[in-house]
Amino acid sequence: MKSGATAQDVARLAQVSQSAVSRTFTPGASVSEDTRNRVMIAAKSLDYRPNAMARSLITRRSRIIALVISYLDNQFYPLVIEALSQKLQKQGYHLLMFISDGQETDGVLDEILQYQIDGVVMASATLSPDLARQCADVGVPVVLFNRVPDISAFGRHTTCSVTSDNYRGGQLAAELLLERGHRRIAFLAGLENSSTNLERERGFNDAMKKARSKFHGRAVGNYNFEGAKEATRALFANKSEVPDAIFVANDHMAIAAMDVLRQELGLHVPGDVSVVGFDDVPQAAWGAYRLTTVIQSVELMVEATVDLLHEQMKDGARPRNVVIPCEVVERDSVRAAVPDSPSPKRASRAKPTSSSRPSA
Amino acid sequence: MKSGATAQDVARLAQVSQSAVSRTFTPGASVSEDTRNRVMIAAKSLDYRPNAMARSLITRRSRIIALVISYLDNQFYPLVIEALSQKLQKQGYHLLMFISDGQETDGVLDEILQYQIDGVVMASATLSPDLARQCADVGVPVVLFNRVPDISAFGRHTTCSVTSDNYRGGQLAAELLLERGHRRIAFLAGLENSSTNLERERGFNDAMKKARSKFHGRAVGNYNFEGAKEATRALFANKSEVPDAIFVANDHMAIAAMDVLRQELGLHVPGDVSVVGFDDVPQAAWGAYRLTTVIQSVELMVEATVDLLHEQMKDGARPRNVVIPCEVVERDSVRAAVPDSPSPKRASRAKPTSSSRPSA
Repeated sequence: MKSGATAQDVARLAQVSQSAVSRTFTPGASVSEDTRNRVMIAAKSLDYRPNAMARSLITRRSRIIALVISYLDNQFYPLVIEALSQKLQKQGYHLLMFISDGQETDGVLDEILQYQIDGVVMASATLSPDLARQCADVGVPVVLFNRVPDISAFGRHTTCSVTSDNYRGGQLAAELLLERGHRRIAFLAGLENSSTNLERERGFNDAMKKARSKFHGRAVGNYNFEGAKEATRALFANKSEVPDAIFVANDHMAIAAMDVLRQELGLHVPGDVSVVGFDDVPQAAWGAYRLTTVIQSVELMVEATVDLLHEQMKDGARPRNVVIPCEVVERDSVRAAVPDSPSPKRASRAKPTSSSRPSA
Repeated sequence: MKSGATAQDVARLAQVSQSAVSRTFTPGASVSEDTRNRVMIAAKSLDYRPNAMARSLITRRSRIIALVISYLDNQFYPLVIEALSQKLQKQGYHLLMFISDGQETDGVLDEILQYQIDGVVMASATLSPDLARQCADVGVPVVLFNRVPDISAFGRHTTCSVTSDNYRGGQLAAELLLERGHRRIAFLAGLENSSTNLERERGFNDAMKKARSKFHGRAVGNYNFEGAKEATRALFANKSEVPDAIFVANDHMAIAAMDVLRQELGLHVPGDVSVVGFDDVPQAAWGAYRLTTVIQSVELMVEATVDLLHEQMKDGARPRNVVIPCEVVERDSVRAAVPDSPSPKRASRAKPTSSSRPSA
């Protein structure tokens, strides 16, 4: 970068104090509009460039938050990136992207520490729990997003985390399908060791037990589109006794399941099989799927995440898990109360107005 | 961050040179596996944290690339974020996210300069061209991704840019629809002032003129899902003479158009109307859409983008536009060569194997 001018030069030219100059270039700092304008004009004419990094060495603030994420093919994560970026940006922070396959976390940790990052958000179901603990160990604020620390390893609250009420969500899915008269309900699982899948399945399982109804088949799709297609084929392999409903651990897999049911098995949704997903990604509302699903509120999850980051930056806050309530949005992939067999067209003919979600 | 140890302390404990320590913590620098291990062990035991920012003040390298993007609801951009992040990460760089509505770019520029960013990738059809020029003015390497500089303002090559061959892509779409016997072909436009839309429409227009075929209606969806639904309704408002094919300026809008055609207008794709999109996002291959579309190769576009960044970091390379070839992937949204009227089920019954793309 080519610039020789100092803050002092700018202050002199703009006829303001040096602190006014630094406040002008400090995101979130208060400075009058008039002062700001004079500083910006002087800075531009002198080609003055404040140096956020030099300042960070003094303030110990890089104003960078690392987002560690493993894959973006599930549309839920792009929503998170956009909402989190916008929220942090308003406060003068920006997201630094780290794509991790969830396996080798050592390299990621070293890099995170080299950048003197102010905080880390780990938004990945597949992420190793070590990374979170290592960051916490060296005093970097961490929030696990959409997952809790590995329960088996060291309990729930070694680090801060934000999840939706996955257990309750699983219950809601089971209760809806049971209420609609389904008795041959299968579960299509995501990554089996992920806290999201564990909680959703546990809630679903408990609701089924309570109703004295047993799982009617279970297959694992690992939160993967092709994996979910394979799992769906497996669930319907035994033609003599196929499921009449599937609870799928996320929307991304539910859409893959609907594709297999309709295009490969020639079945109708919900005429032959009801499908419930989880997340409520925008695609769930698309006319060709109209998926009934459990809503995870990205807005509320992101808000809680940013709050937990700030708490930890101020004072090492006690690790805790913030849980955001879930609710079901009904579209057309679950049959109506009376167990009739609607015409094949029914699902696809539904009025788009009938249940379009507010922020799709 | 809590650490007192210096590189000297680590070198002494690890019994290596100080430069070996700094090489160990410099992404991409060469250091023997044995040395690296000794340094990492010593660093961990001393809780030593290298400071990438302090180093950047000396090397003038922050190893941060800014990605300025306006919205992520079009699935094409998450693909770009993932591919670009992974490619840069392998080279020791990371993406810092800037979400911009494309209007107020001043704030974004100031922030980009404050972070002493090594380069900027602008991946947004809606982005103001000023930002790119301003960055170039102050010597920050810039690559426009999926757009060229505002032609009207100052010609094509004021900054480096990477696009696919949008003009040729538009031609390919028209040629395919004409070859299939369509004569009432409408165009559903994206943002009218965006270079992607301008080029796609120009290529489409020229191919239609060459065949002495005229546009059969045109409506603007502004690359927006709801906008595309409105535009589709408008194209089919005059029941006496509706289009028999639509070229849609991107897949995101093409999917919205297919939803309106089928669910609202009760039309079959491709039985009543053929649809061609642009991008080839993963959703285009989903069983419910099976969209025939023009492929933009994210891999090749990202590769060219990273190369252009490095060129400019080394020596102020001459601004140029790298153009990546396009090709059509045929699925089931365009009718077969013989203009018959396939059964309603035809599209949705297509074998998923018939044209699933390699990296969907």
